[in-house]
Amino acid sequence: MPDCQSLPIANSFKLTRVGVVGVKKPILVRRGKEDHHLNAEIDVFVDLPSTQRGSHMSRDLEVINEMIDASVRRKVSSLEQLAAGICRELLDRHDYASYAEVLMSADYFLERRPEGGRKSLEPYKLMARARAKRGDGLMKQVGVEVQGMTVCPCAMETALRKMEARTPELRKLAGKVPTISHNQRNRTSLMIEVPEQVDIEADDLISIVESSQSSPTYGVLKREDEANIVIQAHKNPKFVEDVVREILGKLLKKYSKLDDSVRVTVRSESEESIHKHDAFAERITTLGELREL
Amino acid sequence: MPDCQSLPIANSFKLTRVGVVGVKKPILVRRGKEDHHLNAEIDVFVDLPSTQRGSHMSRDLEVINEMIDASVRRKVSSLEQLAAGICRELLDRHDYASYAEVLMSADYFLERRPEGGRKSLEPYKLMARARAKRGDGLMKQVGVEVQGMTVCPCAMETALRKMEARTPELRKLAGKVPTISHNQRNRTSLMIEVPEQVDIEADDLISIVESSQSSPTYGVLKREDEANIVIQAHKNPKFVEDVVREILGKLLKKYSKLDDSVRVTVRSESEESIHKHDAFAERITTLGELREL
Amino acid sequence: MPDCQSLPIANSFKLTRVGVVGVKKPILVRRGKEDHHLNAEIDVFVDLPSTQRGSHMSRDLEVINEMIDASVRRKVSSLEQLAAGICRELLDRHDYASYAEVLMSADYFLERRPEGGRKSLEPYKLMARARAKRGDGLMKQVGVEVQGMTVCPCAMETALRKMEARTPELRKLAGKVPTISHNQRNRTSLMIEVPEQVDIEADDLISIVESSQSSPTYGVLKREDEANIVIQAHKNPKFVEDVVREILGKLLKKYSKLDDSVRVTVRSESEESIHKHDAFAERITTLGELREL
Amino acid sequence: MPDCQSLPIANSFKLTRVGVVGVKKPILVRRGKEDHHLNAEIDVFVDLPSTQRGSHMSRDLEVINEMIDASVRRKVSSLEQLAAGICRELLDRHDYASYAEVLMSADYFLERRPEGGRKSLEPYKLMARARAKRGDGLMKQVGVEVQGMTVCPCAMETALRKMEARTPELRKLAGKVPTISHNQRNRTSLMIEVPEQVDIEADDLISIVESSQSSPTYGVLKREDEANIVIQAHKNPKFVEDVVREILGKLLKKYSKLDDSVRVTVRSESEESIHKHDAFAERITTLGELREL
Repeated sequence: MPDCQSLPIANSFKLTRVGVVGVKKPILVRRGKEDHHLNAEIDVFVDLPSTQRGSHMSRDLEVINEMIDASVRRKVSSLEQLAAGICRELLDRHDYASYAEVLMSADYFLERRPEGGRKSLEPYKLMARARAKRGDGLMKQVGVEVQGMTVCPCAMETALRKMEARTPELRKLAGKVPTISHNQRNRTSLMIEVPEQVDIEADDLISIVESSQSSPTYGVLKREDEANIVIQAHKNPKFVEDVVREILGKLLKKYSKLDDSVRVTVRSESEESIHKHDAFAERITTLGELREL
Repeated sequence: MPDCQSLPIANSFKLTRVGVVGVKKPILVRRGKEDHHLNAEIDVFVDLPSTQRGSHMSRDLEVINEMIDASVRRKVSSLEQLAAGICRELLDRHDYASYAEVLMSADYFLERRPEGGRKSLEPYKLMARARAKRGDGLMKQVGVEVQGMTVCPCAMETALRKMEARTPELRKLAGKVPTISHNQRNRTSLMIEVPEQVDIEADDLISIVESSQSSPTYGVLKREDEANIVIQAHKNPKFVEDVVREILGKLLKKYSKLDDSVRVTVRSESEESIHKHDAFAERITTLGELREL
Repeated sequence: MPDCQSLPIANSFKLTRVGVVGVKKPILVRRGKEDHHLNAEIDVFVDLPSTQRGSHMSRDLEVINEMIDASVRRKVSSLEQLAAGICRELLDRHDYASYAEVLMSADYFLERRPEGGRKSLEPYKLMARARAKRGDGLMKQVGVEVQGMTVCPCAMETALRKMEARTPELRKLAGKVPTISHNQRNRTSLMIEVPEQVDIEADDLISIVESSQSSPTYGVLKREDEANIVIQAHKNPKFVEDVVREILGKLLKKYSKLDDSVRVTVRSESEESIHKHDAFAERITTLGELREL
Repeated sequence: MPDCQSLPIANSFKLTRVGVVGVKKPILVRRGKEDHHLNAEIDVFVDLPSTQRGSHMSRDLEVINEMIDASVRRKVSSLEQLAAGICRELLDRHDYASYAEVLMSADYFLERRPEGGRKSLEPYKLMARARAKRGDGLMKQVGVEVQGMTVCPCAMETALRKMEARTPELRKLAGKVPTISHNQRNRTSLMIEVPEQVDIEADDLISIVESSQSSPTYGVLKREDEANIVIQAHKNPKFVEDVVREILGKLLKKYSKLDDSVRVTVRSESEESIHKHDAFAERITTLGELREL
C-alpha cells in the first residue's frame, strides 16, 4: 500500500498541530479504592515538519486505544496521568514530530450533602492536558469545572440603599438580615500544572472552587434546605472577580510546596439573571507570580 | 440524466417527512415602515409515498430561494407568511406529496428601556411554522422565545420564616420589604396559530411573555437601574408554572376574537440558580380549551 | 414550612407537563454478565391540575435518586426499565398528577472490528422513554442513535453518465468498479415501544441501524481497512430515505411476534458533503401499519 | 450610590481579563456600495489591577452600544474596524485597565453559482478581534470560517490499488477517471492581522479558503451540477494538512506587500465520513516565518 502521507509536497510549510479531535472513549480511573468510570472526549495533536505531507492519524487512534487498554491492566490513577502517557507515546510513534499535545475532558460525579439535607451525586467536569517537546520533558495539567451560585454584591448594596430610603426601619436590621440581589448559575474552571512526582487530587480542586462561589448547588433540596442555601449564599455575595481571586488565594495556601513555575488558569462565568449575557473573569499565571503579591 | 429518485424500490414503505434541515438564509421582513433583516434557519419537509424512492430535495432549496427572492420584491410582512408561502409551493413542486411542513427561526431585536434607564436593543427569537395537507388548507403559527428573570416564590417564603425565627423584628417589615430568594434566567417560548385573514404581531407576543416573567432583563443597567430591577422582580416572584399560566390568561384577553380552534403552546424553563438542572412547565392546548375554564 | 406549591392561584389553568430537565446521573445497567456504566441525562414530567399552583419538583429528584440507588441493589437490565420505574414512582409521589413522563439518554460503547481490522470501542447513544396515565398502564420505549456513512446513489449515477460520455472505455467496467459520489456522516435514530413482558436488546437495534447505512464507521482504520470500507460503502449507496426504509423492513422481520400496536420512530440525517445543510427522512408509525404494506 | 467595584479587597491579585461574553447585537457594515446587516456575538475584556475589586461591566455594554450607534452614522466598513473602535473606547472608559480585548463573530452571506448552475446565497462566518495595551498601539485581526468539501487522497490511492488488483482493466483508465474515496464536510478558518492603513477584504479571505478545499459546496444543485462538483472534488483530493498549506501559500502571494510581523492562523477540520471523530490541522505563524521557507 502506498504511503500518501509521506509523498513530496507543493506548499511545504510546517504545521503547528495536526491530529484528531472529538474521540469518545470510556475510561477507568482508580483513585485509592474507588473506581471511576469516565466517558472521556479526547483530542490529540503532533506537529508536522515541512517535509511530511500528512500525519499518520490512524496511529493517533491506536495510541489512544492501547493506552486506555493498558490503563485497565496497570491502573491509572488520574486523567492527567493517562493524558501524559498518550502524549509520550505519540512522540514515539510519530518520529517526524517534535511536539505532542493531548486534551481530555469527562463528566464526573461526587457525593454531596447540603447541611442537614440529603446525599446526592452532583455532576462536575474533569479536564486534563499534556504536552511535550521532544527532548524537553513533559508538562501535564489537571482541571475541573464546577457549577455553583453567585449573588451580586453590588445590586445587594444598591437595593439596600433604595429600600432604606423608603423604609427607614430597615436600618435597624443592618447586618442581621441579608438583602435581596440578583443571583445565578456560575461556572468556574481551574487548571493547574502537575509537576513530576507530585499528585494533585481533582477532588481537592473541586472543593476549592465550590467553597469560593457564593454557595454550592444541589440536586435535591427540600424546602428547609433551599431556605438555608439561599440565606447562606446571600451572606456571601461574590463578583466573578471575587470567585477567581478567592481560588487563587486558596491555591497558594494548599499548594505552598509546589514550585514557582507551576502554571495556573482560573476562569469564572456568571450567567447573570438580570442580563442576557454572561460576566467573565480570568487569571492566567504561575504560582510564582501569585506569590510576588 | 437518470431520475434516481423515481426508480422502483425494495422496502416500499411510505415516509412521514423527508426534506432538508439547517438551511441558513438572510430574509427581509417589512413590518409597517420598518425593515427587519433576519438570518433565518429553515427546515422543510414533504411526505413520500411508498412508490417514490426519493424526494427531489434540490426542489426544496429552489422553493426556499425563489420565495425569499420574491419576498424582497413583493414585501413579506412576517416570517409565518413566508413560511406559509414556502409550504404551499412545496406541495406544488412535489406532486407525489400530500403533506408539507416548514419550520423557521431567527434572532430578532427590539428596543427596550428599563424605567429611568437607557435604551438598548434586546435579543429575542422569532419562530414560524406552516403545514399543509393537500386539499385541506394550511395551518400557520408564529412564535417567540424571550429571556427574562424569575424569582422563586417558595424559597422566598421559607427564607422569610427562617429569618423571622432568628430576627423577630423582621416581622414588622412584613410586606414592606421584599425577601431574598433564588432567582435566575428564564427562557419562555410561545407559539400560536394564525388563522387566515388574521394578523398576529410577534412584538405583542414578546410583550405578553416579557410581562409574565418576574422581570424583563436588559443589556445596559447602571447601578440605580439594577437596584430597581432586582426590587421589582422580588415583588413579583414566579414559578415556571405561574409564568405559563399568566401568559395563557393574557392570550385569552388579547385574542378574545380568535376562534376556539386556535392552537397554542407555551413553554417556560428556569435555569435554577440553586440547582444544576432546569425547571420546566408547558401547556399545549387550544383557545377553546382555555375558555372552558 | 409553608407549602407554596399548594396555595390558591390566579390563572388556574391546568398544565400539560411540569418537571425538571437536564438532570445528570451515573447509572449502572447490568446486561447478562456485563456491567454498563452510563452517564444519563434525564428529564421527568407530570401534569398539573388547575387547582395546584406548583409541582413539588424536589420529589422529582428524590424519585430519580432513589430509583437509581435501588437499581444498584436490585439490578436494572435496561435504561427503559429504569425509566419505567421512575415513571411509576412519579405518579405515586405526585398524587395530584394523572400523567407522568420520563426521558433518558446516555453515551454507550460497543466493541466493533472492521473486517480484517482491529477491535475498537465505538460510541453510540442509548435512549429511553416512559409515559403513564394514571389507571391506564405504562408505555415504554427504547432507542438508539448510530453514526455511520451514506454514499449518494444519485450523484453516483449522474457522475457515471458524465464520465462515460468523455471516457467511453469506462462502459466496459460497468458493474465491476464502483463510481465516485459524495458521501458523508449519517446519524440515524430508532425508537421502538417495548411491550410488557418483552425484552428488546438495544444492541440488536444498533445492529439493525448500522447494517442499514452504506457502511459502519470505525475509530481505527489502517490503510487497507480504509480502502475496504470505502469500496464497500460505494457498492451500497443509500439515500436517507433508503436507510429509514431498510430499517423498517428489518424491524418487521426481527420483531414479527410483536403486537400491531407497537409504536416505531425511525429518523435519518445525512450531513451532506456537497451542501451546508442536512438531508432528513423520518417515519413515525406502528408495526401494524407497516404490516399493511 | 456606593461604588462596590472600587472597595478594598481581600485577595488582591490582579486579573488577566474581566468582561462580558455572549452579547448579541445587530450591526450595519457598509462595504463599498453594499450594506451588510450582521447579527454579531460580542465578547469584551479589560484587565484589572490588584487594587480594584470589580470591573465596571455596565461600561462595557455602554461602549458596545455607543460604538454600534455611531457606526450607523459614520459608516463602518468592517467588523474589525468596529472591534478596534470598541477596544480603544474600553481603555478610555476603564482608566484602571492597561489592556483591552474585543472578539466578534457573525453569520455572513455571499452569492455563489456552481459552474453552469444557479445563483444562491451561501452562508459563511465573519470574525474580528482587536486587542490593545495602553500606550502600545492596537492589533486587529479579521477572519472567516468557510464550509467546503474534502476528498481523502490516501483512501483514493489505496482503493485504486485494491480495485486494480481485482479488475486489471482499470489500469488503462489511469488518470482519466477519478477513483472513489471518502469525502466530507470541511470547516476551515483563517484569521489575519490587519496592519494600520491596510484594508483586507473578508471576501478575498473567503475566496482563498474556498478555493483551497477539494470543492466549494452549494445550497442548490441540480443533478448535472452535483455530478460536476463530485467529479471536480475527486480530481482535487485534499488532506486537512493540504488545505492549510495551500491557504498559507496563497496568503503569501496575495499579501506580498504586508509586513513580516503580520500574524496568521489557519485551522482546518474535516468531519471524516469514515470516522466518528474529526481530522484537524493548524498553523499559527507570521508572514515573516512563512517567507523563510
